[in-house]
This record gives sequence, structure tokens and C-alpha cells, in this order.
Amino acid sequence: MNSLISKDSKWVLTEKGTDPEMIRQNETLFALSNGHFGTRGSLEEAERTREYSHSEATLVNAYYDSEPIEYGEWAYGYAEKHQTVIPVPNGKKLAIKLDNDLFDLETGKTTDHKRQLDLKKGLLTRSFTWENTKGHKLDVIIERFVSYDYPELLAQNIKITPYDEGCDLQIVATLDDLKEMGSLSEEESNDPRIKAQKERRFKSERLEDFENQLLHIETNSTDLHMIMGEKNELSDSSVQSRFENGAESWEIDTVKGETVTLERIVGYSNIFKDASYKEEKAQKLSTIINEASAIGFEGLKEKHVDHMEEFWETSDIEIEGDDELQVGLRFNLFHLYQAAGRDGKRNMSAKGLTGEGYEGHYFWDTEMYMLPFFLYTQPKIAKHLLNYRYTILHEARNRAREMAVDKGALFAWRTINGKEASPYYPAGTAQIHINGDIAHAVHSYVKVTGDRRFGMHEGLEILVETARFYAGWGHFDEKRNGAFVLNDVTGPDEYTAIVNNNYYTNLMAKHNFKYAAQMVEAVLEAQDETGLDVLKRIGFDKTELENWKKAADRMFLPYDEEQRLTMQDDSFFHKEVWDIENTPKDKFPLLLHYHPLTIYRYQVNKQADTVLAEFLFSDEFSQEQKARDYDYYESFTTHDSSLSRSVFGMMASDLGEMDKAYSYFMDTALMDITDMQSNTKDGVHAANMGGTWMSMVYGFGGMRLLNDTLQFRPRLPKDWTRVTFKVQFRHRLIKVAIGKEDTEYTLLKGEPLVIRHFDEEKHLD
Amino acid sequence: MNSLISKDSKWVLTEKGTDPEMIRQNETLFALSNGHFGTRGSLEEAERTREYSHSEATLVNAYYDSEPIEYGEWAYGYAEKHQTVIPVPNGKKLAIKLDNDLFDLETGKTTDHKRQLDLKKGLLTRSFTWENTKGHKLDVIIERFVSYDYPELLAQNIKITPYDEGCDLQIVATLDDLKEMGSLSEEESNDPRIKAQKERRFKSERLEDFENQLLHIETNSTDLHMIMGEKNELSDSSVQSRFENGAESWEIDTVKGETVTLERIVGYSNIFKDASYKEEKAQKLSTIINEASAIGFEGLKEKHVDHMEEFWETSDIEIEGDDELQVGLRFNLFHLYQAAGRDGKRNMSAKGLTGEGYEGHYFWDTEMYMLPFFLYTQPKIAKHLLNYRYTILHEARNRAREMAVDKGALFAWRTINGKEASPYYPAGTAQIHINGDIAHAVHSYVKVTGDRRFGMHEGLEILVETARFYAGWGHFDEKRNGAFVLNDVTGPDEYTAIVNNNYYTNLMAKHNFKYAAQMVEAVLEAQDETGLDVLKRIGFDKTELENWKKAADRMFLPYDEEQRLTMQDDSFFHKEVWDIENTPKDKFPLLLHYHPLTIYRYQVNKQADTVLAEFLFSDEFSQEQKARDYDYYESFTTHDSSLSRSVFGMMASDLGEMDKAYSYFMDTALMDITDMQSNTKDGVHAANMGGTWMSMVYGFGGMRLLNDTLQFRPRLPKDWTRVTFKVQFRHRLIKVAIGKEDTEYTLLKGEPLVIRHFDEEKHLD
Repeated sequence: MNSLISKDSKWVLTEKGTDPEMIRQNETLFALSNGHFGTRGSLEEAERTREYSHSEATLVNAYYDSEPIEYGEWAYGYAEKHQTVIPVPNGKKLAIKLDNDLFDLETGKTTDHKRQLDLKKGLLTRSFTWENTKGHKLDVIIERFVSYDYPELLAQNIKITPYDEGCDLQIVATLDDLKEMGSLSEEESNDPRIKAQKERRFKSERLEDFENQLLHIETNSTDLHMIMGEKNELSDSSVQSRFENGAESWEIDTVKGETVTLERIVGYSNIFKDASYKEEKAQKLSTIINEASAIGFEGLKEKHVDHMEEFWETSDIEIEGDDELQVGLRFNLFHLYQAAGRDGKRNMSAKGLTGEGYEGHYFWDTEMYMLPFFLYTQPKIAKHLLNYRYTILHEARNRAREMAVDKGALFAWRTINGKEASPYYPAGTAQIHINGDIAHAVHSYVKVTGDRRFGMHEGLEILVETARFYAGWGHFDEKRNGAFVLNDVTGPDEYTAIVNNNYYTNLMAKHNFKYAAQMVEAVLEAQDETGLDVLKRIGFDKTELENWKKAADRMFLPYDEEQRLTMQDDSFFHKEVWDIENTPKDKFPLLLHYHPLTIYRYQVNKQADTVLAEFLFSDEFSQEQKARDYDYYESFTTHDSSLSRSVFGMMASDLGEMDKAYSYFMDTALMDITDMQSNTKDGVHAANMGGTWMSMVYGFGGMRLLNDTLQFRPRLPKDWTRVTFKVQFRHRLIKVAIGKEDTEYTLLKGEPLVIRHFDEEKHLD
Repeated sequence: MNSLISKDSKWVLTEKGTDPEMIRQNETLFALSNGHFGTRGSLEEAERTREYSHSEATLVNAYYDSEPIEYGEWAYGYAEKHQTVIPVPNGKKLAIKLDNDLFDLETGKTTDHKRQLDLKKGLLTRSFTWENTKGHKLDVIIERFVSYDYPELLAQNIKITPYDEGCDLQIVATLDDLKEMGSLSEEESNDPRIKAQKERRFKSERLEDFENQLLHIETNSTDLHMIMGEKNELSDSSVQSRFENGAESWEIDTVKGETVTLERIVGYSNIFKDASYKEEKAQKLSTIINEASAIGFEGLKEKHVDHMEEFWETSDIEIEGDDELQVGLRFNLFHLYQAAGRDGKRNMSAKGLTGEGYEGHYFWDTEMYMLPFFLYTQPKIAKHLLNYRYTILHEARNRAREMAVDKGALFAWRTINGKEASPYYPAGTAQIHINGDIAHAVHSYVKVTGDRRFGMHEGLEILVETARFYAGWGHFDEKRNGAFVLNDVTGPDEYTAIVNNNYYTNLMAKHNFKYAAQMVEAVLEAQDETGLDVLKRIGFDKTELENWKKAADRMFLPYDEEQRLTMQDDSFFHKEVWDIENTPKDKFPLLLHYHPLTIYRYQVNKQADTVLAEFLFSDEFSQEQKARDYDYYESFTTHDSSLSRSVFGMMASDLGEMDKAYSYFMDTALMDITDMQSNTKDGVHAANMGGTWMSMVYGFGGMRLLNDTLQFRPRLPKDWTRVTFKVQFRHRLIKVAIGKEDTEYTLLKGEPLVIRHFDEEKHLD
């Protein structure tokens, strides 16, 4: 059993003692966030001790700085600028001083050090006993949480109980020490997945005319502004605090056994564009802080725990028969929920807000891996996430023009502000499947929620523009009897790049065409005013509709008749198969040890590609076909991407290979807790966490939405006795309890509904 | 007629007046070099006047500095460092002062400004009359040449004739002003063909203990050293010079009509690796300078002109019927001869030594475009050029290992020191055809010169190692009935990248296998000791021989049976044809206006690719096939590369399309003089210059080496009455005079020989 998971609780991760080897990983695992901002699980005093210090990063979703991307050799249309989410001042920082000894894990002696992340409550608690060099002792308990009720706020509660009488105890709460910040990238790294951040990327100024301590923060180059603020309250109101060098401090004469409590409210305002708003934004943040402060830590915590309870009420998945997995699973759902932007303007980065990996960028991960969880448990958040894509549609249009496609939009492969930020186009811009991914998510959202308004407005516009792009990128190839082909693309598998007719991409494009055509036809049929307005505004022409249908019908989907295998792309089978078995273990991930031209020359997969296509549209393939393809592609898939195992696991479920499904699921569910990819220190693998939810519901639950009907084909691994989850579907809440023998479907909310259990119809009311 | 070419002479380029618009281009055209170093045709006072100043660059072949290549996203095996030939101090710099007026084209009034590049003599002459602001005048004549007899030396002769009595004339000769140098890249440029050089990339120190003024120069980071030196002699020995700030100056009291002459000898030593040699190298350069100085400018010039005459004696091509072209043609041969390294350690950069374009790198241009000229006119230089490849073979072996090919060698796509320096692998490392190109050149060299010693030693090793690499990169593809395939490569056409089975590459590899097999068999048959030693040392195994033969036999050469067209690569015909006609003129070259993925997605060629393959092995294709392919590929070739037109011209000759051949040839021969590629300012297009020679000899002369026999199929464009050229072939010198009606072949030197004129055998004795 993983050292963080104990038998005592199915809800709590516990770290006992401190291990320098684990400090970075646990900073990620214990990170708290709420979609607006997040703060890593670093120790309050981390910056002072080398051994226990890694990155204290506090990250605000989409608060990024920018610098030109350097190319050894430039070419037209290359992404121009990095977009890098930057650590902002770390408001949880704290100093405790006893008899002039400053507390850290290397001074004096710390015992009973324990940290607990309570997933149910969304609370991180730390406790320890410290004996300083003079033999005086303190018990310390620190709680912290990032609020959902007040998305701007972090609350921290510090309880210090002295063992000795009359010692000089000092507490210092720092808002911003104005020093360089520790960051992920203290070491040099060539890892393309990490972007070195060595300098502070913002300027800050203290705002003096407010009741609370407030900082105005401004990025170096992107003109993005924020207010950060703080209010502290000491239990012993007789002690006056001092303000100095951006910190508030208290000097306390200890009374043996008498606990001193410090309550801190730290705020990170929303992001704004124009410095002239700073006073107004500062006032607003100050008001929020005061409001929260009036409620007090315990009151805030109560609200927070209520909120978390509501979350778990609709989103929890229970497994009977595997307690370790139960915690691991909840850990994933917890982080997923923490990561998502909730204002329709920001999305969910590949690492959530738990680390600086991938620069805080948004990828296809959102739509294809994380969104399903929200779609079926938190549809409002799902809508916010899709809305973000709508806000960057104009940038996607510009990008399509840069790519010389004169109609439509191409979404950036990785981005915050909508502009392409991938400096390596063969595994960036070439992944035009992102359009189909987003279209698929839009289509699913409308189907699952029944949100026709979104469908006929934002959804319609996205579907039309993405379809148009494919129409412009591809063509009807006379050499293939007029089949519609998409050349020079890269599919999900980044170990194969710049190919023709990647199966996944083509299948997604085919459906993109269909979704767009269906939506347009629905608008025309209903003569929906909003929809008609959109079509008029974007210059829709009926010939486009015909063209999409034709392209969908004639979409080229490469297939090898001889081997009866679906081909990843036109030329994939002309390559040699990589000898995975004889590749030394230390040569993985391959991308760090082989030149791209070496990797591209072989049949070797970083992640599910064709198998993902077959999973997404599993009803379009026979079980035999899926099984053949699965065996073939699995044999040379390295899973060097964290987006891979969950898909192979779900497909194993689909094929009834339950041992395999279980094994993949274990890896999926425990990926970050066990640091399977060896880079959890850089942030959680949010897509894999989404994959965990999908593995449960799509995999073991066998849930699919087919012809507007939810269908379940549940199958449990042999050691599990029961799995229970809930899904929202068109204003209904359905509870699914899968047992060894039977499955129980309960309609908890909403109108009666017909679902399918295997091939049998079930009426829920 | 081009403004530089006048009816008066078939040997001289003349610039009358000075035109700021032309200054950069003419700096390139008037550049002088000798393979060791070169100096651009900048004005002696250039740095002082903005309008007439561009780049004074003096470049020493392979004297380069290095800095890390920055990548937005790194990947394993990427080229690590730039290698950039750096401008060294500009020894031709001169200041003329009259009454305290410093001469430049913007001060006072300059009349009759004229510059002449005498190709026959290898001499640049400048003359003008200058009236200063006080109305005093001087006639000035400056001659300069870069010596072949003393490869270290530039000689400059300045004659100043005053119109006025008793004026104060000052002449200042600067060795190194230690200021920042002007360089190509004063403007920001994104052009991938130029590398910005904004800072001085070397340190210099004055060496005091020598008779002559000497500088020790050391690169910033590559530990490459040089000595630069100078000796000046004023005709009026009564005038004492002063040394100050690295310059020698003379103050002269003018005597009306009495010419003052200053002779300058400026030296650039060879490059050395260890600073501790500097005294020795300095002494050596000083001795050379003294020796040259003792001979005096006129004596040196006489030797130089003799040398040039010898060059023209074997290398000139005469055209009767087109005087402009005659000068243009000679201009190309002149620059070709100037550019080649002659010490077996250095090669010939894409811009020769005339500019900083392409950073002074060596490409396949040498072997495929420039070498034929040397092979047939200056075989010793050809050997030196190939020897360079042998010196970097160990780096090529390392590169093959980096590319995970465990035997053989892969030559760098662009390099000076042998390491890959291309920061964009799809148009760099992916061009593995460079191996086949070098092998082809080695094979040709041995065939043409009969240099068996080279063939069985350096040649053998290169042929084996290049063949081995192809054997390791490719494989026998079962999906193609066991054909040998080479995947994920880029052919010569850089508008199509990362494809499978590029026809050109595969054909070159096929021949590479054959050449290697033939050479190994020759060694085994002769039991040649040197050859056997080589094979033993590199671990040759007889199974390799069988494997090469099998791979050559089964080489996959893509062909479209339906259209009866040779396919550029496996997927080329599945792409749409680029609409060149409707592409705005200002969108060329495409590479500066379209994203690579846009360009790669179409049938569009930057340069000859399949057509080049068919030209090189023209006997392996029927005339009908070549004609079909030619028409097809020509229709979408942009000639955005300067390596294209000559090939299309030669193939037009091959196909009897003489008007077309003539038209391409005009563009080829006058490319730099007319600045057709709009970047002559960055240096001449040396490969195209080689293409000019090939166009004459291979194209109009129809010369081929087939089965060890020289064959000619001469055909002249309609306006030419006679073309005469000479070729060296196995210790023979043959003169070929092609008339309207007949062709005369004369054996000028060497043993009797049989050649073929069309299908007829001719015995020359």
C-alpha cells in the first residue's frame, strides 16, 4: 500500500515525517486550488531550508507572462511567444521564532511531523512538535484551504501551544518578501515538458491607502494585473502587531499550555488588464477579505466543508473491495475538481494549478480527458470550459489564416490566450485533431445537457468554424477515388509526426463535419433566430453543408485489408516495429533519448492513437476489429504519455479483458500518488485524472451515449464487490450501483428516462 | 545589358559612379578571395558613410565562433551549437585626409568614381577624383588583389596625385581599429538563411616584438587562433610614418602632380588551435610579409596575373555570339575558383568567402554543384575538397550513433567542424541524401582522375561508411515485397519534408551501395594493402557486401504507373498542386510567407529534386520518361533555391529543348550579377556558379562519363556560333570546340584516348 494511504480512512492522505526525496512530489500532491488560483503543498517555511525546499509556487489560472520564443532557425507562422503562468507571491509563507531560533526542519528538533490532506473536506492539516536549540518546545497545528465560496481566498489557521513559560515567541506572516522566488526550475533542464523560469516575472508595489495589506502585481510584459491582499488576526488581541518589510509580526510572551491562534486570510483578486483599475480592484478584494475575516476561519471552513460535501454528493465514486484504490480514486476526482476554471474565460491546464509543468497551458487534454467528468457530474463547469474555447475563437480564426486556410478556425495546440504557444510544430500545430476534439466535446455537451441555447450559439459557431478548417486543409484526392484526405498532420501519438491520413484525426474530422452539418440543419429546420444570426454573421453558405457531408461520407480511413488492421496513418505499416523489449529501461521516455527522426521511423506509440479513436466511437467498430487493433497497437505502446493508460484500460473493459482493465486502471488511478511518470513534482497529470473517472464510468460502467440514450455495459474486476457512481443527464441525476451480479439504476432527480443495460431497455422513474 | 558589363571587354566588370542601392550587392560581386580568406568589395572608407556602408567583412575560411543554438523546445539529438564564420579585422581599411577633410563619398565632391573587377587578372581597381570642401583635389587609384601565390596575403596599392601644391595630405592605414565591426546583419532579419551577427566574436591583442605590425586574434569560444599582420611602404621614403592606435599614418606636404604611392601587404595567417604557437605563427607570417614586401606590389601583381592566366588556360569557357553572357560566365568561374579551400582541411562554403550568408557553412552544394568544375579543370582542388570530408568522417560516425544507427557515418547537413549545425532537422539532418551526394562525388573523382590511391584509402572509407548508414537507416519492407525503403527523410526539395522514399535519396543510396560494393570488391580483387587495412580497421564484414547489393537491387523507387510519372516520394501525388500562377509575386520565396505545413501539404518544389536524380543518372531513364517528368515537375517548381535553374537548364539540353535550356542558362549565368534571388548582398550563390559551368559542359556540351568513357552530345542555343572549353580527364587535357555544325575535340596533353561524340567513337591522339 502506498505510504500516503492508510487503512484508517478512505478519504485522507497522510504524510508522516518528512522525506527530502518526497518533498517535491508531495508539494504537488498536497496542492490546493479552486480553478482561480492554486498553491503548492510546500511547507510554510520552505524557502529557508534547502533540503525541504523545492517550489512554493502559487499560481493564478491564466496569469501569465510572455517572452519571444527563440528559434535556431525561424520559419513563417511559427508561434511567436511563450505564454508562461508565473508564480506569484506565496501568501502562505510563515516564520515562527522562539528565543530567536527561527523554526525550520533543520534547526532544533522536530517530532511527530504529520500532514494530512482530507479529500472529503478539502483541507490540508500539518502538525508537529518543535524543540528549539535551547530545549524549549512548541506544538504547532496549521490548517489551510483554498476556498470555493470565496474563489479569491486562501485561509490559514495556525495554532501554537508552548510547553514553556515566558519564552519569546515571534510569528511573522509575510505577504511578499520581494525576493526572488523559488521555482520548479532551479536545476537546468532540457526536458521539453518544462519551461525554465529563473526570474521573477512580475513587478509589485504595496498599496498603502487600504485597511488591509495589499499588493498590486503586474506582469513584466503581458500587462496583466492582480491585487494580492492579506488580513491576519491573532487570538490574543492584546498583542499588537508590527508591520515591517511587507510582513506583519507578533511578539508573544509564552504561557505554558496556552494556545495562540493566528488566522490568516490571503486573497488573490481576479486578473485585470488595465492598471487604472487597480484602486477599484484593491477595494473590492479588501472588502471580500473583510467579509471573510468577519466570518472567521472556523466559519469559513464550515462553509468550505459544506461545499465539498455537495461536490462529493454528486461526484463521488465508491469502490467496495479495494480501499487503497478508493482513496487514490478520490484523490483524482478531488484534483480534477480543483483544477477547472469556472468563469468561462479560463480553462484547465495540463497540470491544473499544482505546478509549473507545461507552463500552465491548456491542451486537448481538457476536452478529451477532463471534460467528461465535468459533463456528467458538474455540467456548469463543463459549460465554462467550453465557453473558454468560444472566447478564443477569433484567435483560432487568425491562426487558420496564418496556416493559409481561408475559412474556419484552427485552435492552438497549447495556449492560454488563444494564440499558438507550441514552439515545435510537428507536435504542435500539426495536431489539427484538436479542432475535432473540441467539436466532439461541444457535441457531447449539447447531447448530455440538452443545452440547446449553447448549441445554437457558441456551439454552432465552434462546430462550423472547426469543420470549415478541415474542409480547407484537406481535399478530395483523385488518386484515392476522390476520398477526402488530410495530409501532413500529427495524431495524438507524438512518436509519429507529419503523416498523411492519421486515422484518429480523420475520424474526428469526419464527425466534426457531421456535428456541424447536424447543428446547422437543426438551426435551419427550427429557423432558430440566434442560430440564423450566427450563420449570417460568419457568412455561412449552403454549399458548405453539402461539402461537409460529402467530405464526411468520403473520409479516407486507412485500413490494411491483408492484416485486417486499422492503420494509424497511410505509411505506418511501412515502418519497422520498435523493439521495446530490448530497449534499456533507462531509455524511457524515448523522447528524452532518441532523435525525433529515430522515433518517427518506427512503429512505436507514445500513447493511444488509433485505439483512442476506436474507444471514442466504439459502436462503429466490431469487437473483433477492436480486439485485433488493440493487440497490435498495445504491443509497441510505451505509455510515455500519461494520456495513454486510461484509454487502454477502458478499451480492455470494452473487450471484456477485465484483468488487463484492472491493471491499467491501477496504474491510472495511482499514477501521481506513485509518481509513475517520474515527474509528478512538476504537477499532477490532470488528463490522467480525468482518465481515472472515465475508466470507472466508461470503462467498468461501460457507459456510452448512443442515439441520445445512455447505455451501460457494466463489468467489474474480480476483487471488487461494488462500484457506485452518479451521473447527471439532461437535468436528471442517476445513481448507478454495480454489483457482482446485478446493477441498480436509481433516478435521484428529474423526469423519467429510458436507459439501456446491455441490450435491455430500462425505464427509470 | 547589365550595367556592370560593357561592350569593351569580355573580361571586366565595371561600376561607374556609386549607387547606394547597389552598394551591398557590389560588395559581394567585387569580393576577392583565394580559398583561405576573402574580403568583400567594400570601399576602403566604407565604415564612415552610412549610405555607402554595408559590410566590410573579411572572412577566413573555417574561422568560426560558436554559441549554443536556442530552441523553443529541445529534443534529443538536436544540433547543439551554431558554427559561425566571423568577420575578422578588415585589413584594407584606409583613411585619406586632405586639409583635415576626411575623404568619403559624402564629403566634398567625388567625380569619375569607377571600379573595375578584371577577371582575367584577378584585380580590383578603383579610381576617382576627390575635391574636398576647400576646393583642393586629388586623383586616387587603388588596386587590390588577394594572392594565390601567397595565400595569406592581400596586396593593396594606393596612388594619390594631388592637384594642389602644399596641402596637408594624410594617409592612415588601419590594421584593426578595435571597434565593433559593421556586419551583414545591422538590420533585424528573420530570414532563416542569415544568422545575425551583431557583436565582435573575437578578442585581439597587438604583438609588440615584431618588425611588422601584428595582431593575435582569438575567437570568443572556439579557441581558434590567427595572426593578422601588415606592412606598408610609402614611395616617398623621406616621410616618416607614425604608429598610433593600431594604425600607421603619413603626413605629406603635397606637390602638385606628384604621385604618392602606398603599398600595403596585409596578411592573415593560417588558423591554429593553441595560443602557445602564437609567437611562432607570428614570426612565420612576418617572414612571408617581408618576402612579399621585398618583391613589391608590382612584382606580386605580376606573379598573380601569371597565376590567373594559368587558371584561365585550363578553365575558361569561350562563347562566341553573346558577349554579355561571356563576361557573366567568366565571372562565375572566377568566383568558383576563388572560393575553394585548398588545404584538404577546409571546404567551400555556400557563399564562398564573399559574405556571411549561411554562416560560412559547407553543404552538399560542394559535391553536387561546385565539385564537377574542379574535377574537370582543377582536379587537385577537387581532391582537397573531398579530403575535407575525410577529415570530418569521425564526426559523421558520431552523428550516426546519435541518430541510433549503429554502423556507418552520417555527414552533417551543414557544418564547418563536422558536427551538425542545422537547427531545423526537417530541412537539415533529415536530408540524409548528403551521404549519397558525397559518395557520388568520391566515385566521380576516382573515375575522372584515375586516382586509385585515394579511392582505395579515403574514398573507400567514405564509401563504406556512407553505405553502412543507409543500410542501418532503411529496411526491407515486407509490405512492399521486400523492397528496400528509406523512411522519414527529406530530399533536395525543401518544400517537401519528412517523407518516405524520396526518389532522389533512394537513387543516391542505391548508387552509394553500388559504389561501396565496387570499391570493396576492387580492393579484395587486387588484395590492395591499404584498402585491406582500411577494411580491417573499420571492421568490414563480407555479409555487408551482400546486404548492400541486395539493398541496391531491391531499392524502392516510387513510380506512378497510371500517369507514367516518376514520383518524388511515396505520398507526393496524394497532395494538391500549388497554384503558382495565382500566388502573388510578393509571396515568393514561399518559405518566407507560408508555414512549413502549408508548403509541405502541396505539390510544389523549391528546386529540382526528381529532375536532379534523372539528370545525374540520365542514362538510366528513357528520353520519354525524362520529358514527362520534366514537364510535370517544372510546372510547380518555384526555383526559390538557387540550386534549381541550372539543373532544369541542363535537363532541357538533354531533352533537346534548346530555347528553354538557353533561357535557364541566362538566369543561371547572370543570377548574381542581376541579383535574381534578391540576396546577392549576403554573398554569391556558389552552387549556382558551379551550375553555370555544368550547364555549359554537361548541358550544352552534353558531356557524361559513361562506362569510363567521356561522351559528348553537344547542342548549342541558336544565337551562339561557337563554344570552347577544356576538360582534364585521367591526366589528359582535352579541348572541345563546339560549332554550329561540328565539334572539334583536341587532345592537348596526355595519352591517346577514345571518346564518344553522340553514338560515334572518336580516337583522340
